[in-house]
Amino acid sequence: MPIPILHCDRNSKEELSRFLSGAREDLSTATNRILPILEGVRNRGDLALFEYTEQFDGIKLSELTIDPKSVKTNVDPKIKEAFLRAKSNIESFHNAQKRESWSQVVDGNRLGVKYTPVPSLAVYAPGGKALYPSSVLMGVIPAKIACVPSIQLITPPQKNGIPEILIWLAQILEIDRIVTVGGAQGIAAAAYGTQSVPKSEFIVGPGNSYVAAAKSFLSGQGLIGIDSPAGPSEVCIIADKDANPKWIACDMLSQAEHGEDSSAILLTTDKTLAEKVKDELEIAFVERPKRLSMKQKAIYENSSIIVFPSMDDCIWFSNELAPEHLEIQTKDNESVFAKIEHAGSVFLGPYSPVAMGDYISGTNHILPTARGSRIYSSLGVDTFLKRVTFQEVTKESLETLYPFVKLMSELEGLDEEHGTSVKVRTIGQK
Amino acid sequence: MPIPILHCDRNSKEELSRFLSGAREDLSTATNRILPILEGVRNRGDLALFEYTEQFDGIKLSELTIDPKSVKTNVDPKIKEAFLRAKSNIESFHNAQKRESWSQVVDGNRLGVKYTPVPSLAVYAPGGKALYPSSVLMGVIPAKIACVPSIQLITPPQKNGIPEILIWLAQILEIDRIVTVGGAQGIAAAAYGTQSVPKSEFIVGPGNSYVAAAKSFLSGQGLIGIDSPAGPSEVCIIADKDANPKWIACDMLSQAEHGEDSSAILLTTDKTLAEKVKDELEIAFVERPKRLSMKQKAIYENSSIIVFPSMDDCIWFSNELAPEHLEIQTKDNESVFAKIEHAGSVFLGPYSPVAMGDYISGTNHILPTARGSRIYSSLGVDTFLKRVTFQEVTKESLETLYPFVKLMSELEGLDEEHGTSVKVRTIGQK
Repeated sequence: MPIPILHCDRNSKEELSRFLSGAREDLSTATNRILPILEGVRNRGDLALFEYTEQFDGIKLSELTIDPKSVKTNVDPKIKEAFLRAKSNIESFHNAQKRESWSQVVDGNRLGVKYTPVPSLAVYAPGGKALYPSSVLMGVIPAKIACVPSIQLITPPQKNGIPEILIWLAQILEIDRIVTVGGAQGIAAAAYGTQSVPKSEFIVGPGNSYVAAAKSFLSGQGLIGIDSPAGPSEVCIIADKDANPKWIACDMLSQAEHGEDSSAILLTTDKTLAEKVKDELEIAFVERPKRLSMKQKAIYENSSIIVFPSMDDCIWFSNELAPEHLEIQTKDNESVFAKIEHAGSVFLGPYSPVAMGDYISGTNHILPTARGSRIYSSLGVDTFLKRVTFQEVTKESLETLYPFVKLMSELEGLDEEHGTSVKVRTIGQK
Repeated sequence: MPIPILHCDRNSKEELSRFLSGAREDLSTATNRILPILEGVRNRGDLALFEYTEQFDGIKLSELTIDPKSVKTNVDPKIKEAFLRAKSNIESFHNAQKRESWSQVVDGNRLGVKYTPVPSLAVYAPGGKALYPSSVLMGVIPAKIACVPSIQLITPPQKNGIPEILIWLAQILEIDRIVTVGGAQGIAAAAYGTQSVPKSEFIVGPGNSYVAAAKSFLSGQGLIGIDSPAGPSEVCIIADKDANPKWIACDMLSQAEHGEDSSAILLTTDKTLAEKVKDELEIAFVERPKRLSMKQKAIYENSSIIVFPSMDDCIWFSNELAPEHLEIQTKDNESVFAKIEHAGSVFLGPYSPVAMGDYISGTNHILPTARGSRIYSSLGVDTFLKRVTFQEVTKESLETLYPFVKLMSELEGLDEEHGTSVKVRTIGQK
């Protein structure tokens, strides 16, 4: 039961539609389970956090927070070097995203935009098997560059204490505190605030379905801002006959390694490449059997190789997919990329596997999934900056423009006050 | 029962807390009512739109859409001139917001951001008494500048047909079609698509609580992107002793004119100004009695004048409020504005009443309410542009960075495939 190879064109509605459901993960069951937890944290604060942590994590905490500065860490210097290199690259790329406030004169008046940061941020870092310290860099660095004044790390407690790598990262990133509470209760602590945990206005970072449900629910209530909802990881690869089938198979398996619901879609014009990638996947399953059943389920059930008649058809379908990650490995990557409209992050050429962006190149790996890149962006400095628009109208311009305001406000039935608020400022009305 | 005047300082937690609930409008009742409507439109498409329009609007439609180009309009040239002036100013301010794609080299690799527009947009325009053609300009112009390829206008049908001003605006803004279906069914048509109404990926614009509930629910399901949820309109005014009390009263009443749940908060250091504004409000109620009970309810029940000991206290509380509109009328507006962190749109100086921005100055009037400006921005070109990040890694850089990726992926338990996808591309592994 190898990976399916489909032969499609733009009319293959039935075969292609299953890749386009774009349905967000159904969080209703998780939401029902977490509602009492959210309510508990809201009403009983710290006390509830202690109780839920004992109940769900089997850990009796004596404190809910850690001041990173107060802890001695002993991280392997080689690991430090790797994370510092990643940090430096992520900082470079995100520094380039920062924007300056500006103003210009429009019709006699000064109009402008002042960028200000969100007031506070919580970054969620999952624990246990899904310990992704790299995501801490990705969540915190753009916020630091946006000058978010208060940042806390929310992470589940561990039997052997919080991993040193997280504490060390909190130190070098100058995070205010680590809140050692995970799951929905950790998210609730950040959204409502408790005696020990200051309220955050924004929360980002990956988590399980309870974390996702808590973020989604609290954001819907207007209690906290969130990054775009994160579903299973996906990659789309556009490749032609010159691409390396072994490398492509590796890249597809990188996604499969995240979970059995992950997906990898290869779009190609070349039947031979399609067959070769299929074979390379089977070879890889033999050579690298770690997490085999998970990877196989992702590849066999949620992934596909689709052969299209032309490169333009491949691009068309990639734009329909709006994938989280898009690799382009063709003879002319630039002209393919020029036609790409929707993707979270794009990896051009044979030496740009997604893993480079996951860890070290400098782009952000917190990306919209489930076709979200049609309307959402990756995490970036902009995520944490607001455009506060402003204007200073001159007396002269107000006089000139008043007749227009009068007509427009009359048409909308708002002339009595809106119109008057301008009229009283004109000559002779003072 | 005049407007309340409060004397507060930063410790007046109890008096001030009621302004800070920031509770988003409770849409649960509205949500329950619209769910069957959404389901009806999803399942029965056009047929459901015809039925609901007859049921809720009492209008039997023969067609659901209008091609603006096919209609002759006869709008007063003076009205046209006013809207064209506004259009020109809004275009100037929003053109200045447009950003160019860029790339730069980071650690040997080319990294960049390509801006692409959301694929399609629906702009909702309420009908009847709340006919705000100015909002059509505000919703459509930023999207046009972002090059959104497909834009439709959703608006309830009227007994006497769609108002000419809306059709004319659709013509000059080159809107693809007008969908003459309002309320939750109009929003559902845009989110799901029907036989006559193409699906839109994004929807913006004000509406009643059914419209707000439909937008919120469908956005939560991942079916459509929305602007920040719009609640009742608000203004905060920071003023000192030199400000004109009559003008301030007018500006407060401009907000009150929107609805009885609107609010206007004056923050001042000057008791005399506070008293004078209170008196001017009473005078205005006598002089301009249109919508009197609505305006009085907004002013007496939802508004306040708060006297603080210092200008810094006024600024502090304004940042706590994070108001939709903020007017600054003081001796030194620039230094006050420099300390403003959270506001939707700011109006500097005596000649900048909110009404100027509502209609004609060029800034956008679709703004976050209910303290949303702590984390959200006004509508702008950025609302409709996504940052697609990209990277092209060189062979040399991949070789150099591989050892770091290896260490980091090992730490995250993802070395087998993530690590391998980089390793296979290094020398000697081909």
